[in-house]
Amino acid sequence: MLRVRVRSRPGHPWIFANEVLDPPVAALPPGEAVEVVDASGRVLGRGYCNPHSLITIRLVTRGEGDLDTADLYKRRLAAALALRERVLPGRRSYRVCAGEADGLPGLLVDRYEDVLVAQITTLGMDRRKHLLQEALQAVLAPRGAVLRTDVGARELEGLPVGESEVWFGDVPEKVTFEENGVRFQADPLSGQKTGFFFDQAENRLFGAARCKGLRVLDVYAHTGAWALHALVAGATDAVTIDASAPACAMISDNALLNGVSERIRVVHDDARVAMEALLEAGERFDVVCIDPPAFAKTRKKAGIALGAYKAVNAQAARLLGPGGLLFSSSCSHHVLPERFEEAVVAGIRQAGRHAVLLRRGGQAPDHPILPGVPETEYLKHLVYIVR
Amino acid sequence: MLRVRVRSRPGHPWIFANEVLDPPVAALPPGEAVEVVDASGRVLGRGYCNPHSLITIRLVTRGEGDLDTADLYKRRLAAALALRERVLPGRRSYRVCAGEADGLPGLLVDRYEDVLVAQITTLGMDRRKHLLQEALQAVLAPRGAVLRTDVGARELEGLPVGESEVWFGDVPEKVTFEENGVRFQADPLSGQKTGFFFDQAENRLFGAARCKGLRVLDVYAHTGAWALHALVAGATDAVTIDASAPACAMISDNALLNGVSERIRVVHDDARVAMEALLEAGERFDVVCIDPPAFAKTRKKAGIALGAYKAVNAQAARLLGPGGLLFSSSCSHHVLPERFEEAVVAGIRQAGRHAVLLRRGGQAPDHPILPGVPETEYLKHLVYIVR
Repeated sequence: MLRVRVRSRPGHPWIFANEVLDPPVAALPPGEAVEVVDASGRVLGRGYCNPHSLITIRLVTRGEGDLDTADLYKRRLAAALALRERVLPGRRSYRVCAGEADGLPGLLVDRYEDVLVAQITTLGMDRRKHLLQEALQAVLAPRGAVLRTDVGARELEGLPVGESEVWFGDVPEKVTFEENGVRFQADPLSGQKTGFFFDQAENRLFGAARCKGLRVLDVYAHTGAWALHALVAGATDAVTIDASAPACAMISDNALLNGVSERIRVVHDDARVAMEALLEAGERFDVVCIDPPAFAKTRKKAGIALGAYKAVNAQAARLLGPGGLLFSSSCSHHVLPERFEEAVVAGIRQAGRHAVLLRRGGQAPDHPILPGVPETEYLKHLVYIVR
Repeated sequence: MLRVRVRSRPGHPWIFANEVLDPPVAALPPGEAVEVVDASGRVLGRGYCNPHSLITIRLVTRGEGDLDTADLYKRRLAAALALRERVLPGRRSYRVCAGEADGLPGLLVDRYEDVLVAQITTLGMDRRKHLLQEALQAVLAPRGAVLRTDVGARELEGLPVGESEVWFGDVPEKVTFEENGVRFQADPLSGQKTGFFFDQAENRLFGAARCKGLRVLDVYAHTGAWALHALVAGATDAVTIDASAPACAMISDNALLNGVSERIRVVHDDARVAMEALLEAGERFDVVCIDPPAFAKTRKKAGIALGAYKAVNAQAARLLGPGGLLFSSSCSHHVLPERFEEAVVAGIRQAGRHAVLLRRGGQAPDHPILPGVPETEYLKHLVYIVR
């Protein structure tokens, strides 16, 4: 196996192009396994490389380990599954592999009962699809799996971005599953990202328990998960806002599944336009959940994103009645937690309101965080009471 | 009312001695209400002062407001109660007033069903005890209230530190109450702090749901709340460690209350000594909860505290079986979250183990956080799976 000497950066599994000492980056074999050593020749581990990516090598092991048999992938997936079984007892739908944090950089796998939806975002993983298939079948024995290739991150690795496809087995057009006792349908082949966002499960559980007898607004609703959690927990009624017609159709379907159709109003419109219209119509809510898509896709855009967070949270605060609860999220990794928090508070103040913070939430435990690897953490969630 | 001109520090309710422009600090009337204006004479609000305290003035209002009638205190307590009723539906025992964050600097009140345990830590509040009593009776109509004066913070304000006493009404020797369906007894007059720590309620709820069928160790156990939550949720057995004999007696009483006495072992010993003994005896656990007292009481001691956090978390990690869960807390405000996290991870590594982070928790919502006032935030709680 090729040995690559790098400037050592202990603990982090990514080697950037400018950290490679020899051979030259251009000489690294695309997608192949290499042994990585530090300047003094000490072995750091093994990983796969991609000379065309800014992240040239991703370490997979911290020592030995054969990256080209299924064994390693079976062991990692078994550990990932054991983690979920311990921390999500009784759950049958969740993120079963979260990439880096599960020791499998470039592989995300969501599980909807017995159907898997996978994303492969690195060349090294893409080259090993057959090994991954073998490992997924051995460890999870799914009915079938979809491979989503409609992911922008693939471009950074020179992988084609295209139509998603059935990877193996039998995949139904719709899958039905539960989160916290609320029922959902997802569309494995064409839903947004992998079809559902499991990362908010803990936050929704906390939130729903505070919605009984209350009126709820769910902004950037996607599957309507916040509103549906609230309605199932006894909210009197809910309004959802989403700019996507398929998302709105999905919300209506999900409402029907949970028998709450008569208590939900699905608004198909841009979030800011729809919030303004509700405000002008004099509508007020006891709870507003606002969970925008990543406003900042890059660090450079973080400034613009903060302005947008401030603006939408100001609208949300205006729509809250006295003593209302604001559940405010950001899934932009590039927006620092402190800055997001300042933007939300600034928005609340702009609305002429003041607030105290009741809870800071994060991504659910099926989205683990690798110590020393801040890139594995992205979800920020704040709960305020707004006076 | 005396007007005090200060260097303005917008947003923060504390005015330090070196921020007072005129009159001189020595001329400020101890405990009395003053109007605070900035250098240009703009009103910042009203508060009470203590020329003998480093924090010379604590703002209570951001404008007008009479600090010397019960009205203001009734309104603040009513808002504090409304907050708890919204975010802790169905709960009857919790922190009902968290000082600064509830607009009542220097007043902490815990509620155990219909008995209150209060701490007054500022001269301004101490002088207004009769108004506070009137407000507490009007808003909460308790059976009785204890005033705890065995609090070191009182010394900073020149208040006597002594035996706690019944403040008003009828106070039983023991109060029985529930948290998350687990039953506890507290001793209002002589328990540690206000007798129980409600700030971990959300973290314990998350933790207990992951303990079914598992073996649990609860270090620095105090009331045994972690172990009891786990046992009630179906843990096979639990060991608690506490250096205080009254705490150990309380744990045994609490175990009896919950019918789990035969599954708990109460170890009365220093935490580090007892953990070492368990390790030598070859005992291993599926879950370790470690919640030390504040290792750092001042910012200067933060460095020493980090060493202690590393050491005890290393011991905890050694006591965990493969794939075990570590619930690790710090209640030292002076230890920054990032530093605490590094210390815990360093401890886990020292034990020859590695871990991923599953959850970051904080203080429960009855301990709200005031935006811009970092002093209102102190509890850090981390959940790791340790391999």
